[in-house]
Amino acid sequence: MIIIAERINGMFTNVKEAIAEKNKQVIQELAKKQTEAGATYLDVNVGTAAADQEAAMQWLVETIQETCSTPLCLDSQKPGVIAAGLKVVNADNGVILNSTPLNKKNDEEILDKHIEMAEQAGPKASIIALTMDKNGVPQDIDTRVAIAAEIVSKTMEKGFDSRRLFIDTILLPVKVPNAQVQSGNILTAMDQIKYLADPAPHMTVGLSNLSQGATERSLINRVFLAMAISRGLDSAIADVLDQDLMNVLATAEMLMNKQIYSDSFLKVYSSANKA
Amino acid sequence: MIIIAERINGMFTNVKEAIAEKNKQVIQELAKKQTEAGATYLDVNVGTAAADQEAAMQWLVETIQETCSTPLCLDSQKPGVIAAGLKVVNADNGVILNSTPLNKKNDEEILDKHIEMAEQAGPKASIIALTMDKNGVPQDIDTRVAIAAEIVSKTMEKGFDSRRLFIDTILLPVKVPNAQVQSGNILTAMDQIKYLADPAPHMTVGLSNLSQGATERSLINRVFLAMAISRGLDSAIADVLDQDLMNVLATAEMLMNKQIYSDSFLKVYSSANKA
Repeated sequence: MIIIAERINGMFTNVKEAIAEKNKQVIQELAKKQTEAGATYLDVNVGTAAADQEAAMQWLVETIQETCSTPLCLDSQKPGVIAAGLKVVNADNGVILNSTPLNKKNDEEILDKHIEMAEQAGPKASIIALTMDKNGVPQDIDTRVAIAAEIVSKTMEKGFDSRRLFIDTILLPVKVPNAQVQSGNILTAMDQIKYLADPAPHMTVGLSNLSQGATERSLINRVFLAMAISRGLDSAIADVLDQDLMNVLATAEMLMNKQIYSDSFLKVYSSANKA
Repeated sequence: MIIIAERINGMFTNVKEAIAEKNKQVIQELAKKQTEAGATYLDVNVGTAAADQEAAMQWLVETIQETCSTPLCLDSQKPGVIAAGLKVVNADNGVILNSTPLNKKNDEEILDKHIEMAEQAGPKASIIALTMDKNGVPQDIDTRVAIAAEIVSKTMEKGFDSRRLFIDTILLPVKVPNAQVQSGNILTAMDQIKYLADPAPHMTVGLSNLSQGATERSLINRVFLAMAISRGLDSAIADVLDQDLMNVLATAEMLMNKQIYSDSFLKVYSSANKA
């Protein structure tokens, strides 16, 4: 499982303050803690508060790289901010451009741009593409799957390896009821998306979105993660510091036969991920 | 979700002793505790130690019925023991005959016998049929699904309502590795079995079997339960006294849109089940 650790994000007060005050220690501790907890990538999101988002992204990337070599996931809705991060990132171990819709309101071919940026960043650069287009987030599952198919088809046209593509089916909060796109339907979309290419594209979700504003956040995240892993979810942007969540992840992978059972399977998983 | 509470089983030392000593209190407390915890049915299994299993089954049924009216699930591999239970059970609220394979080594049509017994027991009597036949438990998923199809076809021939049929896909312990029938494959079988009849037969599993002899028993049970509910599992023989398990159950049903989210969704689920 490819775990993209979510915590270095300007939406969190301590990160927002650290960016404003150029306090490296807060960022570097989060980078180290999340790496030790099993992060495959560290998400890097400057949030919306930073005055100069491009400069803030570069400062975050450089600050993290001073202390650890965990690959980064450059997270912004603005291609310019991702591009700024790419200028300073070490892409040798991999980097993810997070994220792009299929296209934008003004018909700008934003997915193409992300593919190009990833190609320029090197052979280990991947992209996260959201199952949304110029009309926004589709209110039904069929349209999401259709957009996923268009994304896969575009990446194929460009000769971009499907293994470098992460498709995000977009989890909405359970607290915002939506008759069309419940979490159960997202699982149905996953069932279809995994067959769109061979090798299959990665599938990812912003797991914590699901429980935004809800009670029992960790429980809700854990239960959905177990369900989604059984459908082939092989990546998540998640709270890697939630040990209960990580234990569910290890158990789900074991039950799906991706790890053999042993009495110490939780420890085995955790050490394998740290290695 | 139809929860069949597993604890009144002669495999547990305190139940075995209670049966031997005719100690009603132990049994009645278990019946009440499990009912309060949300049991839809109480499983009743005399175990293998009782000298006269038929008499022991009748004593258990009568003892439980003295203290609560939760419907019972008469659990034995011997039709005679189930038949003995049926003589004294109050089937007005429902009763489950647990369980029968498709047929037996000697070609005895044991499923037919269970259907007949259920018909005689009244309109609310159901049966649990295991996806195994005279050759034992199939080592591959396709055969299990084929047996499930035969079970459904037999019940249809007999005019037995598919809503009175529970199909048990047979969970084996993760600690006993079996390349063919991993828990992940069982989920694939569930995907197919739910389409065998309309209305669909119920699907059930002996959840605790999965973690038999394993470490992290509750965690393993919880993760598989979440996965299986997302595939349409609507019943389980489980440890209803495991509050963490019951919370996962409530969360899984909420995520699958069977209960609306509210900040108190765990309490809402729990009170609905007790009512």
